[in-house]
Amino acid sequence: MITLASDFGSPYPAAMKGVVLRRSDARLVDVAHDLPRQDVRAAAFWCRETLPYFPPAVHLVVVDPGVGTDRDALVVRVGEHALVAPDNGVALPAARRLASEAAGTVPDVECFGYDYDDPASATFHGRDVFAPAAAEIHETGVDALETLDLVSPIESFAPTESPGSVVDCRFPEPTVDGEVGEARGEVLVVDDFGNAITNVPGSFVAGREGDTVEVNGVPAPVATAFADVEAGERLVTVGSHGFVECDVNRGRGDEAFGLAPGDEVVLVG
Amino acid sequence: MITLASDFGSPYPAAMKGVVLRRSDARLVDVAHDLPRQDVRAAAFWCRETLPYFPPAVHLVVVDPGVGTDRDALVVRVGEHALVAPDNGVALPAARRLASEAAGTVPDVECFGYDYDDPASATFHGRDVFAPAAAEIHETGVDALETLDLVSPIESFAPTESPGSVVDCRFPEPTVDGEVGEARGEVLVVDDFGNAITNVPGSFVAGREGDTVEVNGVPAPVATAFADVEAGERLVTVGSHGFVECDVNRGRGDEAFGLAPGDEVVLVG
Amino acid sequence: MITLASDFGSPYPAAMKGVVLRRSDARLVDVAHDLPRQDVRAAAFWCRETLPYFPPAVHLVVVDPGVGTDRDALVVRVGEHALVAPDNGVALPAARRLASEAAGTVPDVECFGYDYDDPASATFHGRDVFAPAAAEIHETGVDALETLDLVSPIESFAPTESPGSVVDCRFPEPTVDGEVGEARGEVLVVDDFGNAITNVPGSFVAGREGDTVEVNGVPAPVATAFADVEAGERLVTVGSHGFVECDVNRGRGDEAFGLAPGDEVVLVG
Repeated sequence: MITLASDFGSPYPAAMKGVVLRRSDARLVDVAHDLPRQDVRAAAFWCRETLPYFPPAVHLVVVDPGVGTDRDALVVRVGEHALVAPDNGVALPAARRLASEAAGTVPDVECFGYDYDDPASATFHGRDVFAPAAAEIHETGVDALETLDLVSPIESFAPTESPGSVVDCRFPEPTVDGEVGEARGEVLVVDDFGNAITNVPGSFVAGREGDTVEVNGVPAPVATAFADVEAGERLVTVGSHGFVECDVNRGRGDEAFGLAPGDEVVLVG
Repeated sequence: MITLASDFGSPYPAAMKGVVLRRSDARLVDVAHDLPRQDVRAAAFWCRETLPYFPPAVHLVVVDPGVGTDRDALVVRVGEHALVAPDNGVALPAARRLASEAAGTVPDVECFGYDYDDPASATFHGRDVFAPAAAEIHETGVDALETLDLVSPIESFAPTESPGSVVDCRFPEPTVDGEVGEARGEVLVVDDFGNAITNVPGSFVAGREGDTVEVNGVPAPVATAFADVEAGERLVTVGSHGFVECDVNRGRGDEAFGLAPGDEVVLVG
Repeated sequence: MITLASDFGSPYPAAMKGVVLRRSDARLVDVAHDLPRQDVRAAAFWCRETLPYFPPAVHLVVVDPGVGTDRDALVVRVGEHALVAPDNGVALPAARRLASEAAGTVPDVECFGYDYDDPASATFHGRDVFAPAAAEIHETGVDALETLDLVSPIESFAPTESPGSVVDCRFPEPTVDGEVGEARGEVLVVDDFGNAITNVPGSFVAGREGDTVEVNGVPAPVATAFADVEAGERLVTVGSHGFVECDVNRGRGDEAFGLAPGDEVVLVG
């Protein structure tokens, strides 16, 4: 199985799929091709929140503002999973999550370089570098990927550690003061529904349904389900990612709370 | 085969697919993930118009404004097909259509409850309740789904009847007076092309190509094909769903006729 | 394998897939369903730029502004590939490219008519004509497609020639004067990133990184990679299709250069 995630929109992913299918009969599963454009951190978030649900696979992740520069192509192995991506951090949060959720012994995050040269295009390495790499790794087997000529080890680290050589991606850490009832964090992403997903852990509001909290001064009830408030009304809830979300039932939370990705969020209550 | 339909946009469907693929190697086919958001009736329409074209499958349908409330999870069996959906009516029109188009004896619409408990998230039952249910039913077999521990029968009814316990979804009925040449109906949905699809049966205009009808007072020719009128011109036609549609050749019918879903439509001519 | 390309948006492609899957267990791969609406030339461009990356397949291409008129349904065979499309030219550029890139002897472009009659709908031949045709051809085998009752030969021609009977699609030819340093061409398409893709061959700027060229009087540096210029800055580059593109790093080239599909482009420098 090969999953595909990119910010390529349409129809560029089709060229990647064709390239893969000429080299492999792997099952292909689209994760998304409308990831926030050239936004490595947002793409890293969405990969972390989706890829760990999959069975062992090769995950092709191409959000690559540095395409055509000297940034490396990376292969990251985590147990039976491999991620193929530019060395810009986009694959690291998913790799850590895959490691920490693995059954049995926690595997290391093993990073390899993929030594491509002379791609046909300087602006479409998804098609000319990463898709062939993913197909090749799938055919060779994730457990044997270091036997490939173009693959060479860089470093391995435990998922709780930081890499020394490859580019990392870390999300900002919130500060939560349960005594005072205040959390300071940030909007990580806004999803297609308009839910503003923060980095504040859901535990800040869990079990407090019916209480009111202020989000940057805007009051809203804590609720479990969207339908616990009237249509068009704001709510604060524990979203499916485990973080505090600022939402509107049948509406857009980002607009109602005035929040965009990267905005600071102060929760009081 | 498992089909997937939702209003989740992107990339939430990927999490559902991962969950399914950890439990089943079924072929997955996307129906749509941009169904009109939290609009049960529109989703029910599109499922009715697409799912009956498929071979026997498990159809996962998640448009679920009541997620996290006490609404039930439903499994509907119609012959060799099963639909897995929230108990809000979204699956019923497709189920009736599947039954009425089945070869041989018309099967009943058999409704079962799926007795989930403690999903990981109160806001993403697509991932935590419905996707596992669809995978489990696929692996057990649609014909044996009642052997599953979490599945219990609710009721069965003929496709021409109404259910007693599960939530139904009925589309409004138009009034058509062929003698007077007037039909009163409603815009059911507007498609991506901007075609305003009404609930007036196509027979009201079929065979009358070249005649003019008025749509809420706006005149337009009856035509078979878009290209029977000039680019940018209005036409009234029998759409691919069998209903009267108000369209524009290479343009948007909804804008040209001033029509939106739910609007009353009076056709005269 | 059957690939699917259309301008149908969503969820109409699902009906096509259902129709295919009732007749074939072919692997289905979406190329795109958001091709520029009813724009045969743009669709032909994108099919030419994506389909040749695929292994042998039946390619279903439905961008069909003449649906329901007397335009023919076409099957085009190129070696081991077949394209199923309306006879409006949309499949011809991809067919020529497939022929010219075939290994060994260059195959002819073999055109056949598909003699459908009485489709269920006059406005959705994708579902009622082309999808069944693609499934039938896949099941019979591309090499034996002329054995099908509904298929009859029209003509064959070398990829460098023009057809006599079927509708062709040719892209405009640019004029390039390397001595004077001027190229006159046209914007063929604008992609999802906002890159304005011209018909001027990349050779006009290749190897001249750092030079400045004027695009309709607007100066921009020639660059290999987006990131060779600052975010928000214009660049002129050789795109992944081999043509000169007018782009912006992390922005939209079409807006920055004031270019839309069909616009004339004069490059000086």
